[in-house]
Amino acid sequence: MAIQRLRCAIAGLGRMGKRHAVHFLQSTPRAHLVAAFTPDESEIAWARQHLEPFGVRLYKDYGEMLRAETAPFSDENAPGGLQAMIVSTATAVHAEESIQAIESGLHVLCEKPLSTSVEVSQQVLDVAKKHPKQKVLCGFSRRFDASYRDARSRVNAGAIGRPAIFRSQTCDRLDPSGFFVAYAEFSGGIFVDCNIHDIDLALWFLGEDHVIPKSVSAVGITAVQPELAKFGDVDNGVGVVEFWSGQIAYFYSSRMMASGQHDMTEVIGTEGKLVVNGNPAKDLVDLWEPSGIRKEIPHDYYGRFKEAFITEANEFTAACLDDTPLPCKLQSAVNALKIGCALQDSLRSGKKIYFDEIGRKLPERGSKL
Amino acid sequence: MAIQRLRCAIAGLGRMGKRHAVHFLQSTPRAHLVAAFTPDESEIAWARQHLEPFGVRLYKDYGEMLRAETAPFSDENAPGGLQAMIVSTATAVHAEESIQAIESGLHVLCEKPLSTSVEVSQQVLDVAKKHPKQKVLCGFSRRFDASYRDARSRVNAGAIGRPAIFRSQTCDRLDPSGFFVAYAEFSGGIFVDCNIHDIDLALWFLGEDHVIPKSVSAVGITAVQPELAKFGDVDNGVGVVEFWSGQIAYFYSSRMMASGQHDMTEVIGTEGKLVVNGNPAKDLVDLWEPSGIRKEIPHDYYGRFKEAFITEANEFTAACLDDTPLPCKLQSAVNALKIGCALQDSLRSGKKIYFDEIGRKLPERGSKL
Amino acid sequence: MAIQRLRCAIAGLGRMGKRHAVHFLQSTPRAHLVAAFTPDESEIAWARQHLEPFGVRLYKDYGEMLRAETAPFSDENAPGGLQAMIVSTATAVHAEESIQAIESGLHVLCEKPLSTSVEVSQQVLDVAKKHPKQKVLCGFSRRFDASYRDARSRVNAGAIGRPAIFRSQTCDRLDPSGFFVAYAEFSGGIFVDCNIHDIDLALWFLGEDHVIPKSVSAVGITAVQPELAKFGDVDNGVGVVEFWSGQIAYFYSSRMMASGQHDMTEVIGTEGKLVVNGNPAKDLVDLWEPSGIRKEIPHDYYGRFKEAFITEANEFTAACLDDTPLPCKLQSAVNALKIGCALQDSLRSGKKIYFDEIGRKLPERGSKL
Amino acid sequence: MAIQRLRCAIAGLGRMGKRHAVHFLQSTPRAHLVAAFTPDESEIAWARQHLEPFGVRLYKDYGEMLRAETAPFSDENAPGGLQAMIVSTATAVHAEESIQAIESGLHVLCEKPLSTSVEVSQQVLDVAKKHPKQKVLCGFSRRFDASYRDARSRVNAGAIGRPAIFRSQTCDRLDPSGFFVAYAEFSGGIFVDCNIHDIDLALWFLGEDHVIPKSVSAVGITAVQPELAKFGDVDNGVGVVEFWSGQIAYFYSSRMMASGQHDMTEVIGTEGKLVVNGNPAKDLVDLWEPSGIRKEIPHDYYGRFKEAFITEANEFTAACLDDTPLPCKLQSAVNALKIGCALQDSLRSGKKIYFDEIGRKLPERGSKL
Repeated sequence: MAIQRLRCAIAGLGRMGKRHAVHFLQSTPRAHLVAAFTPDESEIAWARQHLEPFGVRLYKDYGEMLRAETAPFSDENAPGGLQAMIVSTATAVHAEESIQAIESGLHVLCEKPLSTSVEVSQQVLDVAKKHPKQKVLCGFSRRFDASYRDARSRVNAGAIGRPAIFRSQTCDRLDPSGFFVAYAEFSGGIFVDCNIHDIDLALWFLGEDHVIPKSVSAVGITAVQPELAKFGDVDNGVGVVEFWSGQIAYFYSSRMMASGQHDMTEVIGTEGKLVVNGNPAKDLVDLWEPSGIRKEIPHDYYGRFKEAFITEANEFTAACLDDTPLPCKLQSAVNALKIGCALQDSLRSGKKIYFDEIGRKLPERGSKL
Repeated sequence: MAIQRLRCAIAGLGRMGKRHAVHFLQSTPRAHLVAAFTPDESEIAWARQHLEPFGVRLYKDYGEMLRAETAPFSDENAPGGLQAMIVSTATAVHAEESIQAIESGLHVLCEKPLSTSVEVSQQVLDVAKKHPKQKVLCGFSRRFDASYRDARSRVNAGAIGRPAIFRSQTCDRLDPSGFFVAYAEFSGGIFVDCNIHDIDLALWFLGEDHVIPKSVSAVGITAVQPELAKFGDVDNGVGVVEFWSGQIAYFYSSRMMASGQHDMTEVIGTEGKLVVNGNPAKDLVDLWEPSGIRKEIPHDYYGRFKEAFITEANEFTAACLDDTPLPCKLQSAVNALKIGCALQDSLRSGKKIYFDEIGRKLPERGSKL
Repeated sequence: MAIQRLRCAIAGLGRMGKRHAVHFLQSTPRAHLVAAFTPDESEIAWARQHLEPFGVRLYKDYGEMLRAETAPFSDENAPGGLQAMIVSTATAVHAEESIQAIESGLHVLCEKPLSTSVEVSQQVLDVAKKHPKQKVLCGFSRRFDASYRDARSRVNAGAIGRPAIFRSQTCDRLDPSGFFVAYAEFSGGIFVDCNIHDIDLALWFLGEDHVIPKSVSAVGITAVQPELAKFGDVDNGVGVVEFWSGQIAYFYSSRMMASGQHDMTEVIGTEGKLVVNGNPAKDLVDLWEPSGIRKEIPHDYYGRFKEAFITEANEFTAACLDDTPLPCKLQSAVNALKIGCALQDSLRSGKKIYFDEIGRKLPERGSKL
Repeated sequence: MAIQRLRCAIAGLGRMGKRHAVHFLQSTPRAHLVAAFTPDESEIAWARQHLEPFGVRLYKDYGEMLRAETAPFSDENAPGGLQAMIVSTATAVHAEESIQAIESGLHVLCEKPLSTSVEVSQQVLDVAKKHPKQKVLCGFSRRFDASYRDARSRVNAGAIGRPAIFRSQTCDRLDPSGFFVAYAEFSGGIFVDCNIHDIDLALWFLGEDHVIPKSVSAVGITAVQPELAKFGDVDNGVGVVEFWSGQIAYFYSSRMMASGQHDMTEVIGTEGKLVVNGNPAKDLVDLWEPSGIRKEIPHDYYGRFKEAFITEANEFTAACLDDTPLPCKLQSAVNALKIGCALQDSLRSGKKIYFDEIGRKLPERGSKL
């Protein structure tokens, strides 16, 4: 009996899209990448070199790819029979392309976030709910990371008693080019763009099926990029979320870490604490120099999470083929975004925001002086 | 020429008082501990064994000690000629005893806090200002710690660019006896009792002469000691302080750390970061066991800061004898307390508190629903 | 233009053989695993489930596989056209099977060691030299490890000045079953079985093209498995190698590490030091428990070096397809074995062994009392 | 009842002598430093400033100090009544001055080593045995270090099963002045000067009352100071000692550590391992810089062991006053020196040296080619 492979296509071949394509092509044995779409000429050029030799068909139009590849299956090497779509285009079109793919009968793996708008994200969730047999995954990469999984299974096994306090941060290496200033116009802001991972983890560790925010508050500064202010954004943010369950999560994000990218998380319980990546390291080498002992750390997010992305590709593929559950619920992605947007609102207004016991935002308690 | 030694007395021989007494007696060569006061019989018994053999005179009445020991100097081994008082009694009488000592012409080292009341602390400061030739020190032990000093001198030297974000925590080992519940009635609350150190450090690192709070907000939970609620206190607290200078400090305190006492601090600047005690350790031993590699950490605050307390005793002594400046300003102690009390207020009310540009609390922006 | 893939077969599906098979099948995009041989029924059963569905043909006879698969290429899915053999059978047949494969015109990746006999290893080298267009790799996995490569490129770039002292260890987790006692009969002894990796690294870091041993000496004990003595072996060994270049390498190996597998290396130069894996860790999780802070470490060699094995598969494949050089010289494998055997001899005789300046063993200087 | 204090004198005020003097004066409450001897003018000048003001009498002649200070006690502030001598002069006179002090009825704390000659050291031991009521301590500072004590008490409590392998190193920071070349003429060589500490620890951890060396062998190189060769010394040495008890100790010493001073030890047992100072650190500060995370380490031995020296002073004092046992046996100091000298002999001859079961060196097994 020959092995069955999931016929996949990818939309978007930017920085992360290229990586997803390579993962599905080379490191996901049960997947068969058959097609790729990008409107960008330089990305097409890259694909001609790196994807086409492996039989991947290239498209410059998303709709055309969808039509051609979802035609009935005829032959292993001909268009048709597509089963899954990886959406890795610009955030602005994530939701629309995901919805089209779902409605075309495909499983979907969409890069986070579904959208920077809670309403639009909710639309994807609503469409997904109408297609319960299709898998729809918003890829929160840390949920596929071996260390986070190790930590969570220990927490679930009671290793730290009852989790009470959750601290998590996402800090990017300072990019002196200031690229992220222009990017800030569409990123949704630092709490939506960076801390969304930490918020998702908070839900995952504290109990995503029952925790409901009670209040959120956030502050931030523009320490290196004052121009972020024009988009209501900051380069360093601190946010605190109180849950009705008597748990607290607090977050930090930064765009100016000198040493490299540093995400980390600690989960504090009544009987212990777990820390993930408290002491980051690029590899296992210590450098003993006249100035002391030095360790380098990863420069970027992918340097830290490459293996998690590969696991994500493999587990998504297996879930589609075997109809097994995914480790991320789409509802949680929407819930995390709600909290991220509320933090961003709090940052902008300077006010604390309150929610009732079913998570509805309460009217303001006063107005800014 | 014989060495000159500072004639000191100590008030209070509780847990910390005993330690101060021993430090001044045995590890402060330029100090001469001549007298000790405590109203407590068991503490007197301890003093008979540990202080009296070294010639320390014991008193059960503070006023009597003050009178007898501040009489004119006659002989090295007779009462009289007292120059300095160490106040280490219960917090409730710190201020009163300090003021009496100052007004008796003595230098004073008072255990933190001066008081849990901002007003009372301000009174000590006011009295101290009238006696400018006397040293009055509120002992924030971390300012005497070699690692904190190393960090601060690096920050001052520009090692991390401009300090922007300050994070600090004070976490006590879980005391299953629940002692701290009764203690909470008088401690001023977790932000005043524990995080006061972190707040003081924030002022020290961010610029104690110019930083002014813009807003504070705090949340907390009672994860292990629900009874704390009756004193408006919690066993885990998270607080955030925004300064008008465009800097942020955020704090965590806990009464339930499983592994031991863990204070730590990080100072994040535009060009680097310094971490103090990110990886605590009881000593230099690593235990390689079938379950992995284990390190023990100090069980209590004194296990971490013993050397700092000894440095404090020596530097206070030198400052009195040589009229040199102290590393802690009394004004900062009052400023730190103001912030600690505001955090505690925010915790109790659930509201964010705002300050104007000269640090005056602004009226509420609304009322709790 | 479609991608060209290297047609490979594997001999041996034991513990490491299974892993190699999976790596070539799933994680080596430019390789095409077409056949596998094992004489073992349970391994055949495993292969029916894990290899056959991917089109891998199974053989119970090595010669038969060689004949069938080296026939002229006819069709992608039919036997014929084999280009490379992975030899991962029992050590006793490594050399013979490698030689047969080389003489059949194949590239060969042989698991270490080629043999426990220097003479037999030399035969493989001699045969390989007669087939200079074929790649013959003895897989020293650590040369493919990212951390070791990082360290070596830094050493080559002068980061530590001139390398002078090399320390390296291979310590296996205690296997209470005592499996390794029976295994010791054929393993060649602890210096040949475990420290061979460390010796290979010493050559690699100190200069494999010019370092020549001047003396070797070794001692050992049987701390947990006294029965090893009957094979002239030990469960803990310490060996020292002096090179004519004025450099020293010293090694430790153990079969009784409580915490897990722990290999590590340090390279000390005139201006600095590099340490690889001085602080091993299973993942990025720290466990803060009432007994302190704990880190788990990998239980076995594969837990530490999985990625290196995958890199090895990919680089071997690329070297065969593109005729690029391999990172391990076969001559070095023979040289390392010579040193390993000399250490084992020194262990057994209790004597120090001396070499002349071209590496020939000198006659004994005396006899054991 | 007033406290009784041990009347001590110190001989030698060089680098370590100054430190001992200050420890006895300022940090040893039960000791009373009454006199100090040094023939060196600059040291006398230092003493006038730092010791005389505390009432310490200064002498330029050792015999004179001994005579004057051992006269009958008359008055707290007059010469006479001396009880203990701290010998911290040049190694060449350690033994002679110690013997004179013992024979004058004094307790003696002698800096290590007693002598670089086994015979001379044995003479001190012989004299000490004739004065069993006097304490004679050869100060191996690491036995007073909190971390080493923690490790040893764990080993004694069975934490690692049966100790089997002992590794220890003493590595000094590179001193570019080359001071240690001249020093090497009298130091006894690197194994006697540096590794003597490690050898002493090996005896202490493996069982000083019963372990007997079976063989020793050593190699070394002159990586940075070729001139050491003229004294038969090296700047990097590796030594291995096999004990009749079936235990092994191996040692490394270096004069060229780039990062600072780094001593460390690991004790490997059948059920676990203890490491002391595997990850050295100057203090608790981590520096996060653009080049990674950096930690500084102590620059010199005193930076690592200051507290141990103070403990040594206090415990020696207590042992003299209370007639309690000391943590170092003088016999062990002689035994350690025997091993150190044998390692140095092996280094020089290039030969392995063998001992019989009662520790007598066996005749050579052959001669160097």
